[in-house]
Amino acid sequence: MTDSAPGRGELALLGEIRRRAASRGQAGGLRLGIGDDCALLAPRPGEELAVTTDLSIAGRHFRLDWHCPESVGHRALARGLSDLAAMGARPVAAFLSLGLPRKLTTASSRTRSPRRTWVQRFLDGLLALAVTHATPLAGGDLAESPLAVADIVLIGAVPRGRALLRSGAKPGDLLYVTGALGGAAAGLARLEELALPSGPHPPKIPKKLEALLAPHLYPQPRIRQGLWLQRHGLASAALDLSDGLSTDLAHLCQESSVCAEVDAAALPLGLGTDLAQALHGGEDYELLFTAPAGARLPRSIAGVKITKIGRIVKARPGRPTMILLTEQGAQPLAPQGWEHFS
Amino acid sequence: MTDSAPGRGELALLGEIRRRAASRGQAGGLRLGIGDDCALLAPRPGEELAVTTDLSIAGRHFRLDWHCPESVGHRALARGLSDLAAMGARPVAAFLSLGLPRKLTTASSRTRSPRRTWVQRFLDGLLALAVTHATPLAGGDLAESPLAVADIVLIGAVPRGRALLRSGAKPGDLLYVTGALGGAAAGLARLEELALPSGPHPPKIPKKLEALLAPHLYPQPRIRQGLWLQRHGLASAALDLSDGLSTDLAHLCQESSVCAEVDAAALPLGLGTDLAQALHGGEDYELLFTAPAGARLPRSIAGVKITKIGRIVKARPGRPTMILLTEQGAQPLAPQGWEHFS
Repeated sequence: MTDSAPGRGELALLGEIRRRAASRGQAGGLRLGIGDDCALLAPRPGEELAVTTDLSIAGRHFRLDWHCPESVGHRALARGLSDLAAMGARPVAAFLSLGLPRKLTTASSRTRSPRRTWVQRFLDGLLALAVTHATPLAGGDLAESPLAVADIVLIGAVPRGRALLRSGAKPGDLLYVTGALGGAAAGLARLEELALPSGPHPPKIPKKLEALLAPHLYPQPRIRQGLWLQRHGLASAALDLSDGLSTDLAHLCQESSVCAEVDAAALPLGLGTDLAQALHGGEDYELLFTAPAGARLPRSIAGVKITKIGRIVKARPGRPTMILLTEQGAQPLAPQGWEHFS
Repeated sequence: MTDSAPGRGELALLGEIRRRAASRGQAGGLRLGIGDDCALLAPRPGEELAVTTDLSIAGRHFRLDWHCPESVGHRALARGLSDLAAMGARPVAAFLSLGLPRKLTTASSRTRSPRRTWVQRFLDGLLALAVTHATPLAGGDLAESPLAVADIVLIGAVPRGRALLRSGAKPGDLLYVTGALGGAAAGLARLEELALPSGPHPPKIPKKLEALLAPHLYPQPRIRQGLWLQRHGLASAALDLSDGLSTDLAHLCQESSVCAEVDAAALPLGLGTDLAQALHGGEDYELLFTAPAGARLPRSIAGVKITKIGRIVKARPGRPTMILLTEQGAQPLAPQGWEHFS
């Protein structure tokens, strides 16, 4: 992002982003933010940098008629922060590439508060979460686009060789998750019911439904929990639950060349959530991790519950990669989360 | 990017990207590429990292009916590499967030070679340029999208405190550009003439027009020239010409709080290019830089011509930020490059 000249259009919007990003302070590692061809980051000695990008596309990852702009901004950043959490990295800087229809950059009837534009409210949501996790917005790109798209880039730092990888799980390790599962899928189902009658605007959320919808609209990336696991060296493997437990656990098993058993009764179900949502619903952004059976894990980390949900077993010819253990016995568990182009 | 499982859809495409990215080798600094929640980069001691993102959107930055997929891939990466060149950084890794309509991931009549999909040919163009500049593709994201969008993230490394900034130009410095100007704008104008009669496919480029169209279809980021300037410590300020000389020089003047004079007769016009295209045409991706009057610059750097085009003067109340000196005298030069939302 290149300019802060007063004016209309792109330069005015860049200027607003630059002012608001600058006012958030620059956390450890960011040497030069918005305003040059690149931002400059200086990791501390002995650190390496973790990098992730996450694309959010209108109609795919959010809907302008379902999601208020604050939620779209929050969720875009949360996806990236959650990837850092899964590596045990501390956030250093975020970058935002934003393509928007012109109407979302001007006050319009699509917003409920006509004096604030959609993009301003999007930034409200994104920057509020950025402040929570001391993550400065350090750059990005801006373009007019017929379709709203936001690509978020997160850069974090982790002591060299200490990052939590997907590939370290060993037979005999136990399987854990943070927080509760299925809440985002259950919240999305409720949002859909609310949104259908209300037309082109995001629905007004009744007070009593806020807690049910929060896991979907405002998921909390588990930065503190990932950092705790990295610093204590207890997790043998970790990833974040973005596509759903059954899909993400399959990734962990594949990268670690192991199989896994999941205890259905042990799964920490979110508010108003059923087993299918907990197993296959995406976008919970909890951490899924493994630790040796001898590791002593606390009941909670930074206020978020830790639950043992199963174990890692050896891969054998003919053994399903994942097995779900229920009162009715063992059954193969297949990935049923989200896949694009399928 | 997360998986290499055989299968259809997203996983199959991710698998292909992972295989092709891996086969390119991993240059200095990339410790862990595609396959986990984040990539891991380890800069050398004393280095800081330069980060840039550039969004390319169908209908805005390229047209499916004008640009062959190889050119779209090349240009997406070239935009990011050019930002690294402008900082004097060596490329460490690239990340690609790609949103594509399903038809671009399957063989279709839109491509001239029906056995290769649009996205495969896009990757051909992107990875060929990545190899030229020893830049591994280290991660990204993939989604189905009604509109083709590609966000490219480039990470480079530069010795701490040695990056070429926009903000260092001083009155008395001389103004230089690499290569030739206006060629991309002239090439685009020719491409438009060729494309209009040919319908939904990118036009076949006649052999004799290839040289005229190359600056637009396959711009060459000036990585070697930027590195040379950084290593020799000769440039006081630098940026890359993405929006056009008149717009980018205004950025340099603003960030350095100076004014500039440009000698019209000195501008190195590209093949088939007029003065207006050299002054205002975007996407040349040459470097614009300043150096003290006493600095001894070579005539060319790594085979690319260096041309003195003007000088930096002190900002004074009432003085235009930029002045164009022609045979007819001095005239104010206004930014006339591209601005979104304007």
